[in-house]
Amino acid sequence: MEVTVIGVAGGTGSGKSTLVRKLLDTFGCNGANGGPAKDAARNGAETKGAGVAMLCHDSYYKSHTELTLEERAHLNYDHPGAFDTAMMVEHLRALKNGVPIDQPVYSFVEHNRTPETVLVKPSRVVIVDGILIFENRELRELMDIKVYVDTDADVRLARRIMRDVRDRGRSMESVIEQYLSTVKPMHEEFVEPSKRWADVIIPEGGFNSVAVAMLIENIRSLIRNASGSGL
Amino acid sequence: MEVTVIGVAGGTGSGKSTLVRKLLDTFGCNGANGGPAKDAARNGAETKGAGVAMLCHDSYYKSHTELTLEERAHLNYDHPGAFDTAMMVEHLRALKNGVPIDQPVYSFVEHNRTPETVLVKPSRVVIVDGILIFENRELRELMDIKVYVDTDADVRLARRIMRDVRDRGRSMESVIEQYLSTVKPMHEEFVEPSKRWADVIIPEGGFNSVAVAMLIENIRSLIRNASGSGL
Repeated sequence: MEVTVIGVAGGTGSGKSTLVRKLLDTFGCNGANGGPAKDAARNGAETKGAGVAMLCHDSYYKSHTELTLEERAHLNYDHPGAFDTAMMVEHLRALKNGVPIDQPVYSFVEHNRTPETVLVKPSRVVIVDGILIFENRELRELMDIKVYVDTDADVRLARRIMRDVRDRGRSMESVIEQYLSTVKPMHEEFVEPSKRWADVIIPEGGFNSVAVAMLIENIRSLIRNASGSGL
Repeated sequence: MEVTVIGVAGGTGSGKSTLVRKLLDTFGCNGANGGPAKDAARNGAETKGAGVAMLCHDSYYKSHTELTLEERAHLNYDHPGAFDTAMMVEHLRALKNGVPIDQPVYSFVEHNRTPETVLVKPSRVVIVDGILIFENRELRELMDIKVYVDTDADVRLARRIMRDVRDRGRSMESVIEQYLSTVKPMHEEFVEPSKRWADVIIPEGGFNSVAVAMLIENIRSLIRNASGSGL
């Protein structure tokens, strides 16, 4: 089976996760933990997990059992070094070769990898999601279509404040402090420059209905062509 | 017949015309004068003019019969005011309503509109091409998919120098002088800001094979769905 890997990158609050969720809502998701996949499972998706598999870079945050929870909470999670990208590369290679993988499950409460894993089966289309997935050369070279979600920085900050204060119970001050001290510098150093690797740039991501429809039509065609050739 | 209008904008040397030519090579072109359409006619296109019609903003440069050739040669052709956009809006509305139009034919040698016209018949997909087509609100609101071709300014200048010196017999000095005095300021004032209206941004345009394939697949699907519904 030919496997098409679609990478979706973009800064915090860009509309990247909304875009991925809309793709998973449409096609269903085979494997993957995390928000978009869970939401998709609740909906009636076209292919019931058959067509699309999903890998989140966030699931591959490094394990830091040697540190206390307090110490782990203060690590810089917006830096490429926070991820076990080598493992993700290995897993993506396996999926491209038709081999199922056990994706790690990360706990954002414990700031640590859990003992659980999620089985991800090979699929015609694999979606790779993460703010920094184009930064790593080995990882991006495994992608056939690289989509970057590009949204004005003020809109992204506004969304992040709303999400973290309203949905995650954090104080406005702490969200803004973290944004200015870590999120913004890491975005400018690593995320924004990785846009140059994009094949397609989608302003506003999941909120851009024209581009979402185009992506859905392309994935549908990939799956249909695979079915048509007897796969 | 439902008509989908795809606008393709982007600066000089961006790869916009190459992108449009690849679409016309694939689907064939119904009407339109100008480079991309002529080239496409020579090739074996999928739908032999049935699926895609094409309107070039360049064909709608204003007539200036009241001026001498010398005077016309010194007009600013990179400013939105150089175009008879009202006529193009009227023509695009007609095509969306299933009415054929007579597209003007512009002579870049005479710097004037010629007495000829080209019949453009309504089609399932209409491609609108031009550096400034997103700048005019009435025009862009007639478009269903707005594609902006985005390429680094130095690459665009390099391509323009090569094209104008090698293919059009102009001196390097005159090309650079015109670029710095008119093309660049107009790009920064009108073209670049119009990117904010784009639904999809394609780096490198026609040289970006991943994005070209995505656009082709989407247009194919639009045409197929129209045929499937008996149109």
